[in-house]
Amino acid sequence: MRNALKTLALAAGIAGVGIAHAQSVDMDMTGRIRAEAFQRSQVLKTLNHLTDVIGPRLTNSPSMYAANAWTREKFTEWGLANVHDEAVEDFGRGWVFTDAHVEMTVPRAMPLHALPKAWTPGTNGMVEGEAMVAKLASKADLEKFKGKLRGKIVFLDDLRPYKPNEKSDFQRHDKASLEEIASSPVPVSRPAGDESPEAMMKRFRERAEFTPLLNQFLIDEGVLATMSISSWNDGIVRVMGGGSRKAGESVGVPAFVMIAEHYNTVMRALADKEKVSLRVASDARFTDDTNKPAFNTIAEIPGTGPNRNEIVMIGAHMDSWHTGSGAADNGAGVAVMMEAMRILKAVGAKPNRTIRVGLWTGEEQGLVGSQAYVAKHFAKYPEPTDPAEKNIPRSLRTNKGKLQRMADYDKLSVYFNLDNGSGKIRGVYGQENLAAAPIFEEWLKPFNDVGATVVTQRNTGSTDHISYDQVGLPGFQFVQDGLDYFSHVHHTHLDVQDHISEPDLKQASAIVASFAYNAAMMKQRFPRKQLVEN
Amino acid sequence: MRNALKTLALAAGIAGVGIAHAQSVDMDMTGRIRAEAFQRSQVLKTLNHLTDVIGPRLTNSPSMYAANAWTREKFTEWGLANVHDEAVEDFGRGWVFTDAHVEMTVPRAMPLHALPKAWTPGTNGMVEGEAMVAKLASKADLEKFKGKLRGKIVFLDDLRPYKPNEKSDFQRHDKASLEEIASSPVPVSRPAGDESPEAMMKRFRERAEFTPLLNQFLIDEGVLATMSISSWNDGIVRVMGGGSRKAGESVGVPAFVMIAEHYNTVMRALADKEKVSLRVASDARFTDDTNKPAFNTIAEIPGTGPNRNEIVMIGAHMDSWHTGSGAADNGAGVAVMMEAMRILKAVGAKPNRTIRVGLWTGEEQGLVGSQAYVAKHFAKYPEPTDPAEKNIPRSLRTNKGKLQRMADYDKLSVYFNLDNGSGKIRGVYGQENLAAAPIFEEWLKPFNDVGATVVTQRNTGSTDHISYDQVGLPGFQFVQDGLDYFSHVHHTHLDVQDHISEPDLKQASAIVASFAYNAAMMKQRFPRKQLVEN
Repeated sequence: MRNALKTLALAAGIAGVGIAHAQSVDMDMTGRIRAEAFQRSQVLKTLNHLTDVIGPRLTNSPSMYAANAWTREKFTEWGLANVHDEAVEDFGRGWVFTDAHVEMTVPRAMPLHALPKAWTPGTNGMVEGEAMVAKLASKADLEKFKGKLRGKIVFLDDLRPYKPNEKSDFQRHDKASLEEIASSPVPVSRPAGDESPEAMMKRFRERAEFTPLLNQFLIDEGVLATMSISSWNDGIVRVMGGGSRKAGESVGVPAFVMIAEHYNTVMRALADKEKVSLRVASDARFTDDTNKPAFNTIAEIPGTGPNRNEIVMIGAHMDSWHTGSGAADNGAGVAVMMEAMRILKAVGAKPNRTIRVGLWTGEEQGLVGSQAYVAKHFAKYPEPTDPAEKNIPRSLRTNKGKLQRMADYDKLSVYFNLDNGSGKIRGVYGQENLAAAPIFEEWLKPFNDVGATVVTQRNTGSTDHISYDQVGLPGFQFVQDGLDYFSHVHHTHLDVQDHISEPDLKQASAIVASFAYNAAMMKQRFPRKQLVEN
Repeated sequence: MRNALKTLALAAGIAGVGIAHAQSVDMDMTGRIRAEAFQRSQVLKTLNHLTDVIGPRLTNSPSMYAANAWTREKFTEWGLANVHDEAVEDFGRGWVFTDAHVEMTVPRAMPLHALPKAWTPGTNGMVEGEAMVAKLASKADLEKFKGKLRGKIVFLDDLRPYKPNEKSDFQRHDKASLEEIASSPVPVSRPAGDESPEAMMKRFRERAEFTPLLNQFLIDEGVLATMSISSWNDGIVRVMGGGSRKAGESVGVPAFVMIAEHYNTVMRALADKEKVSLRVASDARFTDDTNKPAFNTIAEIPGTGPNRNEIVMIGAHMDSWHTGSGAADNGAGVAVMMEAMRILKAVGAKPNRTIRVGLWTGEEQGLVGSQAYVAKHFAKYPEPTDPAEKNIPRSLRTNKGKLQRMADYDKLSVYFNLDNGSGKIRGVYGQENLAAAPIFEEWLKPFNDVGATVVTQRNTGSTDHISYDQVGLPGFQFVQDGLDYFSHVHHTHLDVQDHISEPDLKQASAIVASFAYNAAMMKQRFPRKQLVEN
């Protein structure tokens, strides 16, 4: 695969584009970067402050604002330029919780482990009610349960039988898995089992319509609280948002996610026609009455060469969910991006192009921060005419119409993102930008010995490089070792510093700093793939 | 290995013992047993009542007494004879907790997941104090911290760095692991790294002396509560006992075990010289002021043949720790043993020898129930003269002196135990009773197709068959698939019904019923290995 790509790139080079790959890497600078990253690392210190000291950073929570302030402070201390926040208007309200409590009192006393969904109301002290199963997934369901739920604690999900994981919970790539990832399946027009974009849009729209109805129904019916089952087993609370972050919208009733083992214990008792009562408390509260802006934190190392007006960007989202401390998702990415900027200053880099870092807000709510940034600085699609589509995060819209390009659209060379936990970098997703492959292969060479080798043309999604990719700008995400990201920490109460691998963060810091520097020193702007506008 | 054993057994047969292995299994009866176990199983129903309805069964807690009563009721309903409890005098006090709560308030608010150690006092409502690290492992430590701990919440353990588990958390035996277990390492006189019996005894004695001192010290110094780190990572609370179950002994102060991720979060903050405050509550309480007996539940299918005065026993411990519902440890073993008795009644078995089941109490406190039962009915060593040794559980004593044999010592044929979770039976530990091997191989044959094949001469320890083995009686424990017993559920808050495998319980029920029947029908009493008295 990689040999084939080289041939392609060579052919492209003959045609006068993609010549950049012939440019060799500055090994003196790479050596300095690597030594600073490996011998004088501050990446864990940075991560420690973000996670243990500041804590979880739910978008628009006081701690997310504190993270904006602290990262600005560090960037300034490190001598970066143009350190500032950029507002994402009208994101919604802030929300915090500090404590929650759920226990079974009938048929027998037992503490239950559950935590509140973000943007749901608190209970105003301890409340007690009978547990009841009610699937509330459609308007017909609401009709069916009308008048039956007053004072109840509603269990929304089915019992989910335990399914043991017969693979290790902790994964590193090996030769076989890297070879597998380097090969790209040629897509079928409609992947079997995949939802069509239209179906997904329909589902999104239906959910967007139904959620406010459900929230109001729960209030009107006097439901005490709702319980959902954690999507992972083994005592892990995997919990995201509920209610609504938007001022003026119904936030429903207190809503919790419970560990599967306890959720199922209640469900078995209910299935056996036992009366089950719970005592429930959450001190969750909104910190604002009105919608407030969220903030991206931005900083630069200004370019000093002939292309100083062009921009190389690196970034990661700083917001997190609320129950761990956002260590792997995505304190790790932020700490690496910050460390890369620190390293570049420490080694005295004088890049040709400007190197800019973006610490994004609202990624967990649909790439909100990076979407707003790209829309403001680089390009955006017209606002949808369908009012329902307006309520859908920009990253999930159909993006029909002509792309509106801003002044800096031509100045952005390339963007690199990190957002898959603290596992070390094993390569780069090429996002079907064939001309990128030989460049990345060259750039990875000084890091082959620390495990970074693979360039794949696969597309990877779901994080902030998509905001660039969607508008035809080169935006890339690295291939990382998974570690226990998708078994233990992703959006869970276990996403704290313990599960972070420091050597992996050091390795990633060196590679990101080096990639940023190499991109800033390229003779030409980073090659772009064809943007097909629909 | 197994061929070699057969040769040995044959040689023994020629010498006039061990002939029993030639006796073929009654395939009609085995077929009935298997059909009842597989097609008309009640094992999950039994387990459900023990775990979800009755709940955790800490020795001498109200729910353990409830389990004694309910199992008697079931045995009676199934038509067993001589259904009764046998008291284990002076076990100690009962103890319950129904709810606990720990949260960090300073430097930032965060719910912490921790549960109380059994037999520790409650907090009498919510208390708040500063966290402080203090290793309190020796009298010198107590001197060192005297006067410094008032009002503090003491963190007793070191921070433990996360170590990922690179193997699957869920294990079944395969060909290689069964072959491995079938081979016995010839023991060295003093296994490298193993503690000598004298060193273990010394450690035990020192701990027995130190614990009351520590408990009283914590009270005298006005410590609010202590925190220990869970011995497993990944959000699992693995918690056993603390304080003291004995009336009149100091129970210390409220003591909790906290998940590693949260414990380490506090420890990192303390290492960074942060002030950390916690709010803590536990409603733990003792249910008695004086020591009370614990109870084994006993029932029989009386023998009808010429050897009706001889006894075959099966058993499992019914007590559990207090945070899960004692499903894998050892609701599974109890449900299988009960089901085996039910099956034997259902198939109309008329055994030659009496088949007796023992549901033991106090196993988690040192095989207390089965030790007392064996001492009363079969044999015991003289009480130790060393008063310190008297305080050590019988199973851990040096057992010097001449064994005192009771009337039934010669009547007990064999005892089978199950206590390693709900994983299916893969074979039997022979405990170096070579004459047992060919018998077990014969008995396993009808279950080879459901995965039970291996006979190993290895000794396995740590549960109630040891009470028999120690006094020279044949006591055996089965080889089981591990499942997630030693990764998720052993002594943890996750030990609930979810992690139980029903097909595995059915398989085990059939095998135990069949083994009990075969043992009851043997021409001769089960062969005994040589008892060397010291």
